[in-house]
Amino acid sequence: MDIESTTQANKGGIFSRLGNYLKALPGNIKSKTINFTRSIEKIGKDDPRRVIHSLKVALALTLVSLVYYSRPLYDGFGVAGMWAVLTVVVVFEFSVGATLSKGLNRGCATLLAGALGVGGQHIATAFGERAEPIILGILVFILAAGSTFFRFFPRIKARYDYGVVIFILTFCLVTVSGYRVEELFELVHQRLSTILIGGAACIVISLFICPVWAGEDLHKSVASNIEKLANYLEGFEAQYFHCSEDKEKCEKSVLEGYKSVLNSKASEESLANLARWEPGHGHFRLRHPWKQYLKIGALTRKCACKIETLNNYLNPEIQSSLEFKCKVEEPCRKMSSESNKALKAISSSIKTMTDPSAAKIHIKNSKSAVEDLKVALEIVSLEDNELLAIIPVATVASILGDITKSVEKIYESVSELSHLAHFKSDIEPNVSPEKPPLLHRGIIKPVVDIDNTVDQIEITIQEITADSPEKENAPKNTSGHVCK
Amino acid sequence: MDIESTTQANKGGIFSRLGNYLKALPGNIKSKTINFTRSIEKIGKDDPRRVIHSLKVALALTLVSLVYYSRPLYDGFGVAGMWAVLTVVVVFEFSVGATLSKGLNRGCATLLAGALGVGGQHIATAFGERAEPIILGILVFILAAGSTFFRFFPRIKARYDYGVVIFILTFCLVTVSGYRVEELFELVHQRLSTILIGGAACIVISLFICPVWAGEDLHKSVASNIEKLANYLEGFEAQYFHCSEDKEKCEKSVLEGYKSVLNSKASEESLANLARWEPGHGHFRLRHPWKQYLKIGALTRKCACKIETLNNYLNPEIQSSLEFKCKVEEPCRKMSSESNKALKAISSSIKTMTDPSAAKIHIKNSKSAVEDLKVALEIVSLEDNELLAIIPVATVASILGDITKSVEKIYESVSELSHLAHFKSDIEPNVSPEKPPLLHRGIIKPVVDIDNTVDQIEITIQEITADSPEKENAPKNTSGHVCK
Repeated sequence: MDIESTTQANKGGIFSRLGNYLKALPGNIKSKTINFTRSIEKIGKDDPRRVIHSLKVALALTLVSLVYYSRPLYDGFGVAGMWAVLTVVVVFEFSVGATLSKGLNRGCATLLAGALGVGGQHIATAFGERAEPIILGILVFILAAGSTFFRFFPRIKARYDYGVVIFILTFCLVTVSGYRVEELFELVHQRLSTILIGGAACIVISLFICPVWAGEDLHKSVASNIEKLANYLEGFEAQYFHCSEDKEKCEKSVLEGYKSVLNSKASEESLANLARWEPGHGHFRLRHPWKQYLKIGALTRKCACKIETLNNYLNPEIQSSLEFKCKVEEPCRKMSSESNKALKAISSSIKTMTDPSAAKIHIKNSKSAVEDLKVALEIVSLEDNELLAIIPVATVASILGDITKSVEKIYESVSELSHLAHFKSDIEPNVSPEKPPLLHRGIIKPVVDIDNTVDQIEITIQEITADSPEKENAPKNTSGHVCK
Repeated sequence: MDIESTTQANKGGIFSRLGNYLKALPGNIKSKTINFTRSIEKIGKDDPRRVIHSLKVALALTLVSLVYYSRPLYDGFGVAGMWAVLTVVVVFEFSVGATLSKGLNRGCATLLAGALGVGGQHIATAFGERAEPIILGILVFILAAGSTFFRFFPRIKARYDYGVVIFILTFCLVTVSGYRVEELFELVHQRLSTILIGGAACIVISLFICPVWAGEDLHKSVASNIEKLANYLEGFEAQYFHCSEDKEKCEKSVLEGYKSVLNSKASEESLANLARWEPGHGHFRLRHPWKQYLKIGALTRKCACKIETLNNYLNPEIQSSLEFKCKVEEPCRKMSSESNKALKAISSSIKTMTDPSAAKIHIKNSKSAVEDLKVALEIVSLEDNELLAIIPVATVASILGDITKSVEKIYESVSELSHLAHFKSDIEPNVSPEKPPLLHRGIIKPVVDIDNTVDQIEITIQEITADSPEKENAPKNTSGHVCK
C-alpha cells in the first residue's frame, strides 16, 4: 500500500510538474526568444563590422561553391574542388591580417609539404615494395613529431602555427595517398590550384569589401585604453574631492573603464602579430612600428595597476583627516587633472597621428604639482593632525605622484612611436603674435634622436613657462566643494 | 672614369662583403645551430610533456595513416579515408580537454550539418533542375552568414567555435557535392565513420597515454600564482627592511615573479573552458567547480596589482625617514610576513586539496598587525619627523594593509572552493596533549555554511589565541638590520 501510494504521489507529482512546465512553456519560449533577439542586436550594434563580415564569408563561400558546382570546372578539378570550399571556411577570418596570415601560411605550407611528400614517396619506393609502407610510416612519424614539437616555440606559435598544422596534414596526405593515386603530381597540382582559388577569393573579398584592419584596431585600442585612464582620473578627482556637480564624471562606467585595460595584453599581442601581415593601408605604411604599440600597452597597463590601487581609496569607509585633505588638495587635484589632460592629449595625438608634444606642458605642470605637494607638506603643522587619519590621504597623494611618473613614461613611449611612424608634426608655420614665442618653442621642439629620444630633450625655458599654464589650469572650486 | 671606378669599387665592395660573409658563414651556422639546439632543450626541459605530446601526435597520425594505407580498409572508405588523417591533425591538442572539445565539436557538427545538408538537398531537388543551384546557393549563403555571425557570441566563441566552423564546412560540402556524387548517404556515412576513426584515435591516445589535463594545469597555475605573490612579499620584506642575509630571497627572479600573474587572465579562462570538457580524473570529479578558480584568479590578480604599486617603493632613490621606518617596522614586517605565510598556506592547501583553515591564524595575525600599526602610529611623536620623508614609508604601510585585505578575500574564495570541491578537512582525530586544545579548535573549525562561508565563522577564542602565535612569528632581527 505504502509503496503504491508513493508511486501514485510521484506520478501525480510528475504530471503536475509536466503540466506546470507545459503551461510555462509558451512564456519561457517567448522570453528566451526576446533575450536571444536582444543579444543578437547587441552584438551587431557593438561592432557593425561583424554583420558585414558574416555577409562577406557567405559571399565567398557561395562563390566558391558555385565554382565547385559548375560542370566544366568540376571536370577539371575532380573531388579536389572541395578543397576550395574547405579553404574558404578555415581561412576567412575577421581581419585582413588574420586572413592573409592564414592564407599565406596555408599556401606556403601546402607547397613545401607537397614537395617534401613527393620526395618522401620517391625515397620510399626506392626501398622496394615491401619496405615502402615501413619507410613511409617512419617518415610520417618523424615529420609529425618534429613539427608538433616546433609548434611549442613561442615565435612559431605566434605566427606560423596554422602553417605547421597544414604542413603535417599535407605531408601525410601526399605521402600516404601517393601510394594509391597513381598521378601524384596531378593530385598535388589539383590541391594547390583549388587552395589558390579558395585563398584568393578570401583575400580579395577581405581586402576589397569593407576591410577590417588588425593594425587599425590595435592603434585605436591603444589610444582608447589611454583615454580610459584619463577618464578615470577625471572621475576620481571629482569623486575624491567632491568638486564636481557633474554626475556623469563619477558614473560607475567611467570609474570602472580602466579595469578592461588591465587585461588587454593578450588581445594587443595577437593584433600586433596579425598587423604585421597586412599591407600598407590608410595612414599605416607597410612596416609600421607595431611593436612599439606593445610597449605603450605595457606602460598603460602599469599605470592602470596604480589606478587599481588608487581606486581602493575611494571607499568612503576609510576615515581620513579632512583638514589635511584640504591642505594637500590643490597639488593633488593638479597632479590628477594635469595627468588626465596629458593622457587625453596623448590619446588624441595617437588617434590623429600627430606629434604628442601638446601633452608636454601638462606633464611639466603635473611635475610642478609634485613639487607643490612637497612644499605643501613641508609647511603642514603636524601637531594638530593625527597621523593615522593623514595616512590614507598621503597614500593617495603618493600614488598620484607615481601616476604622473607613469604618464611621463607613456608620453616618452608615444613620442618614440611618433618618431618611428613619422607622425605629422604639430608645428604651425606662422606663430600667432599673441603667443609667447619662447613657450611655443619649448612645447613643440620636435624629437630628433632615435633612441631614448625624450630623455635628451632639454627644456631650457622652464622658468619662463612655469607660471602661465599653472594659472590657467589651477583647479576651480565649485559649489560641491568640501573645503568651503 | 668616375663611374667606372665607382662601379669597380662597388664590385670590389660586393666581392669583399661576399668574401666576409662566406668566411663568417661556418661560424654563423655553428652559433645558430647551437642557439637552436639550446632553445629546443629549453622548451623540452620547461615542460617535458611537450616532447611526449609530440610523440603521441606522431603515433596517432602513423596509426591512422596505416588505416588509410592498408588495402581492405581503403577499398571500404575510398578517398574519404583521408578525413581520418585530417581529423587527427586538427583535433589532437595538447590537453585532454582541448582534444575532447575539438573531437566532440567536430563529431556533433558533422552529424548535424550532414543531416541538414541532406535535407537541404531534398528541398532543392523538389524545386526542379533549373532552380536547384539557385536554391542551394541561397541556402549556403544564409547558413554561412548566420553561423559566422553566431561565432561572435562570447559563449559560442569560448566553447563551440570549432564546431560552428565544421558545421559550415560540412553543410557546404554535403549540399554542393550531393549534386555530383549520387550516393549522398554513402558519402555522409563514409565521412562520419572516418572522422570517428580519427577522432577516436586522438581521444584514446590523449586519454590513456600520459594524459595532460587542462583542469590540473589550471589548478596548479592558480596555486603557483598565489605562491608567487607570497614569494614576492618575502623578498620585499627582506629587501625593504634589509633584514635578511639570505640573498636568494631578494633575487630579481623572485621579486619579478608576480609580473606573470598580472597577465594570467586569458590563459586561466581558456584552461577553465577546456577543463569543463574533461571527465573526472585524479582528485577532480566530473563537475569540479572550475569557475571558482577564475574567481580566485581574479582576486590574485588584484593583489598582484597592489604588489606592482608596492614594488615602486623598493626604489632606493626614494628618500624616506629611517627613524619613522624603524617605528613602524615591526607591524609592517608582521603584516608582510603573515600575509606571506597565509598565501603560502592557501597555495599549499590548494595543491594538497585540503581545507585552507591553516591560513586563518596568519590572516588573524596580519589583521592584528594592522591594529598594531594603528597603535604605533598613534604614539609616534610627529614634531621630530618631517612629513615629506614619512610619506613613502606610510604609503608602503598603507598598501601592505590593503594587501592583507586582499589576502583575506583570496582566503575566503579558496574556502568556498574547498567547500564546493569537498577538499579534505585538516582535522586530526587525536589532538596531541602538548597542543592547547582551545587554540587547536580555533584554527581548524571546519567551514559549514554554503554561501559567504567565511563571514560567518566566529572566532570565539580570540583573546586566548591572540598571543601565542604572535610571539612565535615576531620578526627576528638579523645582523643586516638597519634599526640596530
